[in-house]
Amino acid sequence: MIQKITGGVCAVDGVEAFGIKEGKYGLAIITAKGNAAGVYTKNRVVAAPVIVTKEKLETNGGYLEAVIANSGNANAFTGEDGIFDANEMADVLAQNLEIDPKYVAVASTGVIGRKLHIDKIKNQIGDVLPKLSSTEKANEEAMKAIMTTDLVPKGFAVEAQTSKGNFRVGGIAKGSGMIEPNMGTMLSFVYTDADVTSSLLQMCLKDATDCTFNRIVVDGDTSTNDMCLITATGKSGVNINLDDEMIYSEFQIALETVMKELAKMIAKDGEGATKLIECTASGAYTEEDAVLAAKAIVRSPLVKTAIFGNDPNWGRIVAAAGYSGAEFDQDQISLEVADGSHSVSLVDKGEITKNDEATLGKLKAIMSAETIYIKVDLGTDYTGTATAWGCDLTYDYVKINADYTT
Amino acid sequence: MIQKITGGVCAVDGVEAFGIKEGKYGLAIITAKGNAAGVYTKNRVVAAPVIVTKEKLETNGGYLEAVIANSGNANAFTGEDGIFDANEMADVLAQNLEIDPKYVAVASTGVIGRKLHIDKIKNQIGDVLPKLSSTEKANEEAMKAIMTTDLVPKGFAVEAQTSKGNFRVGGIAKGSGMIEPNMGTMLSFVYTDADVTSSLLQMCLKDATDCTFNRIVVDGDTSTNDMCLITATGKSGVNINLDDEMIYSEFQIALETVMKELAKMIAKDGEGATKLIECTASGAYTEEDAVLAAKAIVRSPLVKTAIFGNDPNWGRIVAAAGYSGAEFDQDQISLEVADGSHSVSLVDKGEITKNDEATLGKLKAIMSAETIYIKVDLGTDYTGTATAWGCDLTYDYVKINADYTT
Repeated sequence: MIQKITGGVCAVDGVEAFGIKEGKYGLAIITAKGNAAGVYTKNRVVAAPVIVTKEKLETNGGYLEAVIANSGNANAFTGEDGIFDANEMADVLAQNLEIDPKYVAVASTGVIGRKLHIDKIKNQIGDVLPKLSSTEKANEEAMKAIMTTDLVPKGFAVEAQTSKGNFRVGGIAKGSGMIEPNMGTMLSFVYTDADVTSSLLQMCLKDATDCTFNRIVVDGDTSTNDMCLITATGKSGVNINLDDEMIYSEFQIALETVMKELAKMIAKDGEGATKLIECTASGAYTEEDAVLAAKAIVRSPLVKTAIFGNDPNWGRIVAAAGYSGAEFDQDQISLEVADGSHSVSLVDKGEITKNDEATLGKLKAIMSAETIYIKVDLGTDYTGTATAWGCDLTYDYVKINADYTT
Repeated sequence: MIQKITGGVCAVDGVEAFGIKEGKYGLAIITAKGNAAGVYTKNRVVAAPVIVTKEKLETNGGYLEAVIANSGNANAFTGEDGIFDANEMADVLAQNLEIDPKYVAVASTGVIGRKLHIDKIKNQIGDVLPKLSSTEKANEEAMKAIMTTDLVPKGFAVEAQTSKGNFRVGGIAKGSGMIEPNMGTMLSFVYTDADVTSSLLQMCLKDATDCTFNRIVVDGDTSTNDMCLITATGKSGVNINLDDEMIYSEFQIALETVMKELAKMIAKDGEGATKLIECTASGAYTEEDAVLAAKAIVRSPLVKTAIFGNDPNWGRIVAAAGYSGAEFDQDQISLEVADGSHSVSLVDKGEITKNDEATLGKLKAIMSAETIYIKVDLGTDYTGTATAWGCDLTYDYVKINADYTT
């Protein structure tokens, strides 16, 4: 049984955190000793902290003792200086904590192409360190410290009660703009007190990322800084291994639950967003085809603006599926839109269900909800299914990004 | 020598046109007898007029005598009824012109998923037919009739003076939203008085489309109705054939000149746009890689909003190249932004040129121009080069599309 609990990363035994935010510039520190794994951006322009952290985890035996993350400056496209600064952040923290810097991961988010304000970060390390703790408040401050244009801090935790004992998974994340993660997300740090090897953690993290963070789109821009790290403190004593399929699957479900909630929080708090869009494509030849269709729909600026304006222009949804690359026959597709309590069928096996004022009025009402569910059945004889999350495209997205650096 | 001339399609000998616009609903008719070819949307949801026109040109020996195009209703996702209506439009026109309907192409643009207002179209055919002529005014009315959210009518014509005689190429187009053409563009009709076989026309049209209409992005949504048709009246007596490489290449250049100007007009008049963005990627491994990079940059909502707001946030340009799929090394990339008379170097072989207030101020000034030129050199040892066109993303794009059908 999996149950939602409070406390984010600090709900997990062995984790301490804290953070500080000074204007645009924030710093979070999380400490937790354990096996670890990471997934990273596939952008060819890779930020220095991603390069540094990836290399550490590939060469240190898959183990972390602390994570340091700053907001306000992405330390991306900063060349050798950037690599030096990223290492410097980790080194200063390691020195203070009296641990080996090779076990300190570093992450950044903010403007690209600016030298890191390393002195400010050093000062902030001094401010944050004495306050590290495992309280809910400490988790709250860490969540806030990594926000940029995010409006809402993002954290989620669960406790899994299994026959082998209880364990917890908790994570925090930040998102907002430049969001179409490819193998990671803007920044997310996930912790568990289960006992998991780093190689198994890597597998679990990759699988969970594929159906959570890799299924959200805010604007279709893939960041240079995407990174999701997981650390397993092992403090619960519950061992996760592939020989015990039951406990492995319970762990995977708990992990995906936390990451899916964080992913939805990122989509819902997309820059300027007023609504969460959840699109499920079914009846596809393959799961990959279903992903293509669902993501194309939540990525489409025309679908997103229509949802912002409650404009019942459902043809755009079908058109987006059409150019997604997913294979299907337009005479077999079905479309339904819902708000959680009401739903309206628009297309049934290629036939327009009804296009009268009453139907469009009903659709308009549904579109004014906070969460819009789009269900597309591609109508092949196969069962490929996938869900993707996005948000509407609003005046505020334009406003926020028209003067981000100024 | 190629020279710009006035008159759009009507500049071409053998072409007559006219159009009418009543509120949202417009109708254009163009008559011209000659060998013909077409390129169409690759969206899997294909509008009825695209299906009908494509089939005609594939079975009638590649010949057209007239084109009829309506705006306000896309006749897309309308099933068997839609096919019937598209044929009906062509049949009524053919009957009035006393020609074979198999030589009449049909095109539509507007809202998806609504039954065509065929009676209104029949009435409009009656209104337009008596006014068909080859004047500049007639071309103007045809251009206006196919507009939807376009603000500016789009037409361009050239005369090529060659040793084999002179010939002309003229075209009109409409664009605005749902624009990322894949093998065609929203709607474009191109005419030439050169004498060209339909199979050669098809080849020339495909090649020209690949480097013009297929290089523009307004919002990344590929329409269900994209179509570009070309008809060669042969009236100039100048024969274009592959045995005469010189004249073939002069024809191809003339054709690409017209289509490139139309493509730029579509990008510049993208929904809500205030600026044209021209991005050239060079130094790529292949031309395909250069296309990926250039199109990713003009498609990026973050680049587009920054350009709207004159925000000198150039890191977003590099990030977009990074996730484009083009292969390159971030330490070799160079970036320059210009406005036609001034330019500013931002990155040189992976090194930030200067990031001081003066440089960013210069960039900000350049970004306030009507046309922004972005030059990215991917820095490989190869010479793949491509140019793509797009526009900024503004409040008005959101406004226009938040209540398009209502």
